[in-house]
Amino acid sequence: MQINQEGTVTSAAGFTAAAIAAGLKGNDQLDLALIFSEQNCVTAAMFTQNQVAAAPVIVDRETLAIDNRIIRAVVINAKNANACTGQPGIENARRMQYVAANALTGTPEQVLVLSTGVIGVQMPMDKIEAGINAAAQYLSPENGRAAAKAIMTTDTIPKHLSVSVDLPEGTVTIGGMAKGAGMIHPNMATMLAVVTTDAAVEAVELQELLETAVNQSFNRISIDGDTSTNDTILLLANGASNVSLTDAASQAQFGDALNYLCRELAQMIVRDGEGATKFVEIQVTGARSAAEAHQVANTIATSPLVKTAFAGSDPNWGRILAAAGRAGVSLDQYKMNLWIGVEQPDDLQLVANGTPTGYAEADAAAVFAQDAFKIRLDLGLGAGSTAVWTSDLTHAYITINADYRS
Amino acid sequence: MQINQEGTVTSAAGFTAAAIAAGLKGNDQLDLALIFSEQNCVTAAMFTQNQVAAAPVIVDRETLAIDNRIIRAVVINAKNANACTGQPGIENARRMQYVAANALTGTPEQVLVLSTGVIGVQMPMDKIEAGINAAAQYLSPENGRAAAKAIMTTDTIPKHLSVSVDLPEGTVTIGGMAKGAGMIHPNMATMLAVVTTDAAVEAVELQELLETAVNQSFNRISIDGDTSTNDTILLLANGASNVSLTDAASQAQFGDALNYLCRELAQMIVRDGEGATKFVEIQVTGARSAAEAHQVANTIATSPLVKTAFAGSDPNWGRILAAAGRAGVSLDQYKMNLWIGVEQPDDLQLVANGTPTGYAEADAAAVFAQDAFKIRLDLGLGAGSTAVWTSDLTHAYITINADYRS
Repeated sequence: MQINQEGTVTSAAGFTAAAIAAGLKGNDQLDLALIFSEQNCVTAAMFTQNQVAAAPVIVDRETLAIDNRIIRAVVINAKNANACTGQPGIENARRMQYVAANALTGTPEQVLVLSTGVIGVQMPMDKIEAGINAAAQYLSPENGRAAAKAIMTTDTIPKHLSVSVDLPEGTVTIGGMAKGAGMIHPNMATMLAVVTTDAAVEAVELQELLETAVNQSFNRISIDGDTSTNDTILLLANGASNVSLTDAASQAQFGDALNYLCRELAQMIVRDGEGATKFVEIQVTGARSAAEAHQVANTIATSPLVKTAFAGSDPNWGRILAAAGRAGVSLDQYKMNLWIGVEQPDDLQLVANGTPTGYAEADAAAVFAQDAFKIRLDLGLGAGSTAVWTSDLTHAYITINADYRS
Repeated sequence: MQINQEGTVTSAAGFTAAAIAAGLKGNDQLDLALIFSEQNCVTAAMFTQNQVAAAPVIVDRETLAIDNRIIRAVVINAKNANACTGQPGIENARRMQYVAANALTGTPEQVLVLSTGVIGVQMPMDKIEAGINAAAQYLSPENGRAAAKAIMTTDTIPKHLSVSVDLPEGTVTIGGMAKGAGMIHPNMATMLAVVTTDAAVEAVELQELLETAVNQSFNRISIDGDTSTNDTILLLANGASNVSLTDAASQAQFGDALNYLCRELAQMIVRDGEGATKFVEIQVTGARSAAEAHQVANTIATSPLVKTAFAGSDPNWGRILAAAGRAGVSLDQYKMNLWIGVEQPDDLQLVANGTPTGYAEADAAAVFAQDAFKIRLDLGLGAGSTAVWTSDLTHAYITINADYRS
């Protein structure tokens, strides 16, 4: 597998992109992107589980249901989520499909729409329509990074990557971009990701590959099912490499590459979480099942008290055990063991059988002072384990979110 | 019902208290309290549902189980929670019972122990023992307010109140004190409350009265079952008024007074939440059941994005609907209606059938700029309703919690 840190959503053959300043963000910032494929794309998708789904999510679900998942274009705007906008919002999302289809000589049912930004405000359709029409003039394989910039909201850096895999049948490339989220509850701020590949994959297999990858990446930075109004990840496969993933071994290799790409994008989101200054891996081992391990790990990873302790470089591990204790999983506190470390999470044992060890406070503080470190909580109950990634909760998070709309 | 804002845990006849500076907080601050009754107290109690329960919670549960709930003294310390301290912690909690019993001529099984403060550090038993022995010399009905001060951690004001009720059988008094919690997840910072009464009540009835009151008060500022390692509320009834609650009407009147007292103490905790500058009542109506209304209201009340919007005086109501949508209750976003107001939550309608109304942004901002305001979300699904109380999430919360231990 070749990794290209400069790779983007247009690294796979046959994909082009455009990004323009449609006037949504102001100050000539990029705020609208198109992704386009001349060839039809088999498409897999996963959407928010929030019952207050945004209009583009509702429209995309309908589109993918009626059209056998053949897509050629994706239009994405920042600054307005088109959520909680009622029937006018639905009509505006459909209008975006229609305008993009007209500009790109496709049909509306071959266009997906993604939006991110403020909730509860109708879309400025004059700017959006003019933006789509203008962007359609600038489609190019060179614009992948610009597209990653256009979809940013509170992100501070564009997030993109590509990987290539040499299979017996030939080389295939996967490229992707993502935008991030408020990291205290990534579920509540919008996560968008678009991944493209020139491999030829059947629709059912593509959806399975996407779900496997998301469960090991984007779902490790959020509580399952606890998502924003707009969260969406798309995977478009246009087959332009002429390499079909018919062989099981090739599929597995492709799957590994897709997992890697999604995990890297997800970790980029954590590192660039709103106000985040630390990247923390939380491992839970010794659970009765992987599901229970995940539940405990996510409760720790989203605990404001744990995350403020990270921000203060304070190895206040009592908060970690306390978070585990309210995770809704049956536990025995006297079987709990806790380690921390920088490279490995087993460098320093803080808790043995629910009781503090005689560790030196300075050693623990030295680990928590790092920009990145790892924690392992063993529950002593079984063989289930998981790892999730989280950040600290800082003053900057409050600043960003206390007045996000202005 | 007579309300006494200066009333305390010693307002009911027969209760005394003491508070001293045992050297736990330093700087001669009060940090250890005793509550004492010459007469035996029938006792009701509710404890944290956290499976990582602190040593005093474990010991109190045992004590109340073996001794038919007859209690005469409560010893409370701040600064150390005696949680995640293993078997030594259990022994220290028992030692606190024993020392208090010796000092007060009771038996250890008639003493309950409450602790709050940092987790994972063994109790400084020399200071604790000396403190209990010293405090026992100063028991007086005058020390109720001092006791409320001694149990404070990040609280900025002591929280106490008493109410008296004239029943046909005579007058009974209920007094109480509480200490607060980090308000982003009150479940994680410790909430302690001790309520005393001179009414004579049977144990079973007393427990029922307490549970009813807590469900309408302290459980309205927290997610049920999602509590800290130490959360405890005690209700001690010593019968010193010689008024027995045998009559159903009298019991109901007493219950109303207890509910009022607990609701007031709970709201004091919200108002004094860590870094809180706003007090917000969140009503959910039109739910299928009261339980579903409560689940939605609590998800809104604990959403960091909602609470940071409160901090910024930003009427970003999309976050309120989005929080409802992830609450785990089946909803129809197009049936949702949302109002806000200062005195009543129906002054200004922001959302009708899931779509923004044509309200003036300045009107909404004027409500959110207040120190206290109300929100009502109607789900349009049934007759279930609830109200919960929450605060905003501010920079001060981060400051308090990023370095709580130092």
